[in-house]
Amino acid sequence: MERISRRSALKTMGFLGCATGCLAGGLMAGAAPFSGPETAMAVTAGRFAQKDAPFSWKPHVLDAKVSAPVAYDGYWHQGYGCGYGVFYAIVGVMGEQHGAPYNQFPFTMLEVGKSGISDWGTICGALLGAASAFALFWGRKDRDPMVTELFRWYEQTPFPVYDPGTDARGVPGALPTSVSNSPLCHVSVGRWCQASGFAEKSKERGERCARITADVAVKAIAIMNAKQAGTFAVAHGDPASVTYCGKCHGPGKESPLLKGKMDCTPCHSGSPHTADKFKNHP
Amino acid sequence: MERISRRSALKTMGFLGCATGCLAGGLMAGAAPFSGPETAMAVTAGRFAQKDAPFSWKPHVLDAKVSAPVAYDGYWHQGYGCGYGVFYAIVGVMGEQHGAPYNQFPFTMLEVGKSGISDWGTICGALLGAASAFALFWGRKDRDPMVTELFRWYEQTPFPVYDPGTDARGVPGALPTSVSNSPLCHVSVGRWCQASGFAEKSKERGERCARITADVAVKAIAIMNAKQAGTFAVAHGDPASVTYCGKCHGPGKESPLLKGKMDCTPCHSGSPHTADKFKNHP
Repeated sequence: MERISRRSALKTMGFLGCATGCLAGGLMAGAAPFSGPETAMAVTAGRFAQKDAPFSWKPHVLDAKVSAPVAYDGYWHQGYGCGYGVFYAIVGVMGEQHGAPYNQFPFTMLEVGKSGISDWGTICGALLGAASAFALFWGRKDRDPMVTELFRWYEQTPFPVYDPGTDARGVPGALPTSVSNSPLCHVSVGRWCQASGFAEKSKERGERCARITADVAVKAIAIMNAKQAGTFAVAHGDPASVTYCGKCHGPGKESPLLKGKMDCTPCHSGSPHTADKFKNHP
Repeated sequence: MERISRRSALKTMGFLGCATGCLAGGLMAGAAPFSGPETAMAVTAGRFAQKDAPFSWKPHVLDAKVSAPVAYDGYWHQGYGCGYGVFYAIVGVMGEQHGAPYNQFPFTMLEVGKSGISDWGTICGALLGAASAFALFWGRKDRDPMVTELFRWYEQTPFPVYDPGTDARGVPGALPTSVSNSPLCHVSVGRWCQASGFAEKSKERGERCARITADVAVKAIAIMNAKQAGTFAVAHGDPASVTYCGKCHGPGKESPLLKGKMDCTPCHSGSPHTADKFKNHP
């Protein structure tokens, strides 16, 4: 692609911003009106500005018993799925109880988390919904330990836990459980299907993920409430693999190339699942 | 946890909504004021309502040459990272050019994507930022093929491509490239570090990810512009592994447990990387 300088781009943006945004009353907070030579500087100050200060939304204590069925129903609502369900059970419920800014959010954006981001099986959308909600209130220094506690708990817990009782939308009654050892949708769903014998496209699998949507909302709310009360503490430690592999793959160590915090075992333990599936399989 | 019925929860929410939300002027659009027996139904109608209709934001054509340096700078801005950079280069720039609703978004929420979601190495945050932006404008039927085109392109492209020239914020000049075969941050960064010899915490790795932030913004904008022009078409097909494995692991097939669309080879080809790392390693 053509290479252009940052300064040129900012000048271009300044012109465009005032040709359309100012006339339309859409000028960003912090950006000065068009005034000649100062435009680039003014727009530089306005760039990356936002309506509310970074991470400035005020969190409120939520009742997990109220939000759990909202998360479960949100999963099924218009098929928006797990990311929407968890996010609405946190931010949407705050909107119902406290109005703006919470109820101004375009909640359906979180449908993107469905099936691990538009059906790709990457991050579990329920976890994405929770982590995204955290990020409205807390910057990374405070948020990262909260996300880690949530993700470690998810890796280690036999799911699903929540039972909607007579309000079940997929299938009622008890469901088989499995431990994912991973925050990834592909691994989490695959392990449950293998453990339960149900197909990925089965009603039971959908019901399982709807219940996990409620489970993640409950845990996320517990973390948020504790954070607000000043009592948040990490309860789920690193798995042995992360400690073991980190001895050589951490910063300044022999092979400092490791990125991330996921349990290493699902992909690096030489299990039958990661053997060569393209020869002599199964 | 205690089991409660959905109807009970809705009634509880109705009470809470009017004890706080109505008085504070925060009542959601679509929810009727408290009026006795109809409350549950009224709040049911209000639940999952949102300020703007689902996926109703109007997309605008963007100039990738303008947005690329914004994405690159957004990566470095306050250390908000890749997810923020891509999202701001799309939605933030629309806000600069067109005002509301784009400039009302709490952009720093997308910091959550940094390092694969709060340092976990799951989905590449740049991809999360782009997919999330798509979801403001298009529901899953339209969006999923757009996300798949973006992710397939990401799996198959030697990164980084973008060169900030004299505006480099990390290190200037050409950088080594690598193909990730994966939308996951852990795999994408790990492969690049192994191919380049640079550490995960190196300035070079940061520069590489800042440039990929621009690369993803450019590709995402090309997809969005084509979609608006009615010319969007899938250019990057499924890798051979997805076709091969899908023959038995698809819906209705012999082992229908597969979730997701990721290239299977990084984790299921019996490569040295997925051998047992807990015995006789390296």
